[in-house]
Amino acid sequence: MSGPLADLHILDLSTYVAGPSATMTLAQLGADVVRVDPLGGATDTRRLPLGADGTSLYWAGLNKGKRSVELDLRSESGRDVVRSLLAAPGDGHGLLVTNAVGQSWLDHRELRRVRSDVIVARIGGRGDGRPAVDYTINSEVGLPWLTGPVDSARPVNHVLPAWDLLTGLHIALALLAAHRERTATGRGRLIEVGLADVAAATMAHLGFVADAVVNGPGRLRDGNYLYGSYGCDFATGDGRRVMVVALTARHWDTLVELTGTRAVLDSLQRALDTDFGDEGARYAHRDLISAVLAPWFSARTHAEAVAALDAGRVLWGDYRTLGEFVTDPLVTANDLFHQVDQPGVGVFPTPGPVARSAGWGLGEPVPAPRLGADNDTVLREWLRTESGRA
Amino acid sequence: MSGPLADLHILDLSTYVAGPSATMTLAQLGADVVRVDPLGGATDTRRLPLGADGTSLYWAGLNKGKRSVELDLRSESGRDVVRSLLAAPGDGHGLLVTNAVGQSWLDHRELRRVRSDVIVARIGGRGDGRPAVDYTINSEVGLPWLTGPVDSARPVNHVLPAWDLLTGLHIALALLAAHRERTATGRGRLIEVGLADVAAATMAHLGFVADAVVNGPGRLRDGNYLYGSYGCDFATGDGRRVMVVALTARHWDTLVELTGTRAVLDSLQRALDTDFGDEGARYAHRDLISAVLAPWFSARTHAEAVAALDAGRVLWGDYRTLGEFVTDPLVTANDLFHQVDQPGVGVFPTPGPVARSAGWGLGEPVPAPRLGADNDTVLREWLRTESGRA
Repeated sequence: MSGPLADLHILDLSTYVAGPSATMTLAQLGADVVRVDPLGGATDTRRLPLGADGTSLYWAGLNKGKRSVELDLRSESGRDVVRSLLAAPGDGHGLLVTNAVGQSWLDHRELRRVRSDVIVARIGGRGDGRPAVDYTINSEVGLPWLTGPVDSARPVNHVLPAWDLLTGLHIALALLAAHRERTATGRGRLIEVGLADVAAATMAHLGFVADAVVNGPGRLRDGNYLYGSYGCDFATGDGRRVMVVALTARHWDTLVELTGTRAVLDSLQRALDTDFGDEGARYAHRDLISAVLAPWFSARTHAEAVAALDAGRVLWGDYRTLGEFVTDPLVTANDLFHQVDQPGVGVFPTPGPVARSAGWGLGEPVPAPRLGADNDTVLREWLRTESGRA
Repeated sequence: MSGPLADLHILDLSTYVAGPSATMTLAQLGADVVRVDPLGGATDTRRLPLGADGTSLYWAGLNKGKRSVELDLRSESGRDVVRSLLAAPGDGHGLLVTNAVGQSWLDHRELRRVRSDVIVARIGGRGDGRPAVDYTINSEVGLPWLTGPVDSARPVNHVLPAWDLLTGLHIALALLAAHRERTATGRGRLIEVGLADVAAATMAHLGFVADAVVNGPGRLRDGNYLYGSYGCDFATGDGRRVMVVALTARHWDTLVELTGTRAVLDSLQRALDTDFGDEGARYAHRDLISAVLAPWFSARTHAEAVAALDAGRVLWGDYRTLGEFVTDPLVTANDLFHQVDQPGVGVFPTPGPVARSAGWGLGEPVPAPRLGADNDTVLREWLRTESGRA
């Protein structure tokens, strides 16, 4: 491998989304990542969606570019192999990512006996020790009661496991920071990132916490409106939808100009003694503004509206189904994606690293391994033994 | 500052969520981050929600722990100050984060004349040059048609700007990777991460793309169900809701045991010739399973259900409003949060770094600066001039 992290060798004993996405991201930047699974694979091995032969497309997506070692992790001999891999000599070794809870053999204190400068990056759930996954944390930070139709009596979960993904990138970042520190000082570390902490902290970063504490917990459900400025979805005459956003004064001006609504909006601003050039005013009057703008969209087909929005340089996005998305140029004419043959599944568009830099030479994305495919080569390379069967 | 990145000095010319959250995360790991704003502040300076004096709580959340330099960026003399700051000597200097488009003075080629090994980390929108923000990208990758009530005729936007946040962490990670490479080779870099690339790649990582390409675009809206395994929200007898998840066979077993539904579920499994111990079977029969489980929840108050769920070690989460969340122990009894006095706003709970490691000594979170508060000190420290007014 090439890439800026090509000297790193990372043991990945994590499962589901957070840990695997962290190490996959590091692998795509050049790191040598070895995912270690118990015999038959961890609990995420057969997670839906599946290919025709039963291969998990989810697992394949989150473990691409890694190598796979399959071991009897219930036995001391299997655990000895992990310990040996972690103790492999060199500055780039001695790095472990895990989300195991209650497995004392993976404790930092235990692993320090194996390699004194080991870096263990552990993903946790809740600080109080209660188990947690993305979907049970998300409901606790208040978002589902802010998501979805204004008149819904039920909370609405979002589909993206955003907390898992963010937690994974925080772990990847902390691992790099810790390795950098170890290079300077020789000291290893236990780093912990908790899913609940990431969700709660992120809600604070975005101002949700301060708003509720300082101004009171009055923020309401907004449906498809963008909070705090102007953004809304509109139906075109042929029943499709577009998302239109006016975040800045310039965005707003282009939208007003294109839709020919300036006279009406000006009279409203005068009557209401407000200025829609101010994002707070746009947000406060969002229903009124949408009612003024909507006829422009309903009087046009999707094709007509889209052509005009682009010509007018309005900030907008199309609403696509999943099927439309995967046949869109964003996937089919984007050099981020390569047609990769995933063993057992076949060829499908697979993204390389999202961080692009001319000269990093990261090449084409590498598919996920078959379980245990790399037992021999990894043990031979990392442990420099004759036979990989240590 | 202490922390693993204490030797880094980063110039932040970014706005809104992605760039500012990237540099704020790096600042919380110890980096010296200087946000540079045009006179009066960039377009995100007054974004809602606001405190009583008009201070943006959103801006405060995303810029905490940084210092602020305010310059006339339309003038060559203001731009000269930025160039001088970027050229400050030392391995930890020469790092810039930006999401500016079409500002040629911030081009990598231009900035290399100022410092040959400069690292420019640039956040972009769409690869085709069309402008894009989180909300217009999200609609294009298919999620809003998968989010929300099954019977809704409209797409449902989620509220969390997840693509911005993920893009920010990818930029932070790439910046560290590039700095690490520069330390080894002396070479600078232009790194680019596009919002649309992050969204499209992440949809691929999670298996959405492969599923639609290999199996056809048949994935349906699931409402509040967890895709591919079993997870569902239930109403308690007093009208509250909880999210219950059975991701693994063990989770499922605890849920069946607690709710006393084993006999009914066993008879169903026999009649349907299936095994709910398999996550795919649980997902296929999710409506049936929920109908069997629901009476247990509706027969109990929220307090009774919650006590039993905890005692039975079921994986569950509460549905909280924003007001409930900010008064929950996750915020009020979590040592991640500190009561920080934000100038102009007052005291509210503010999170420190989510990556925790005993000994990093990251201390209490630092509030966001007032605009331009650090002009003199930053210029003095970075440029070692007598007067900061360069």
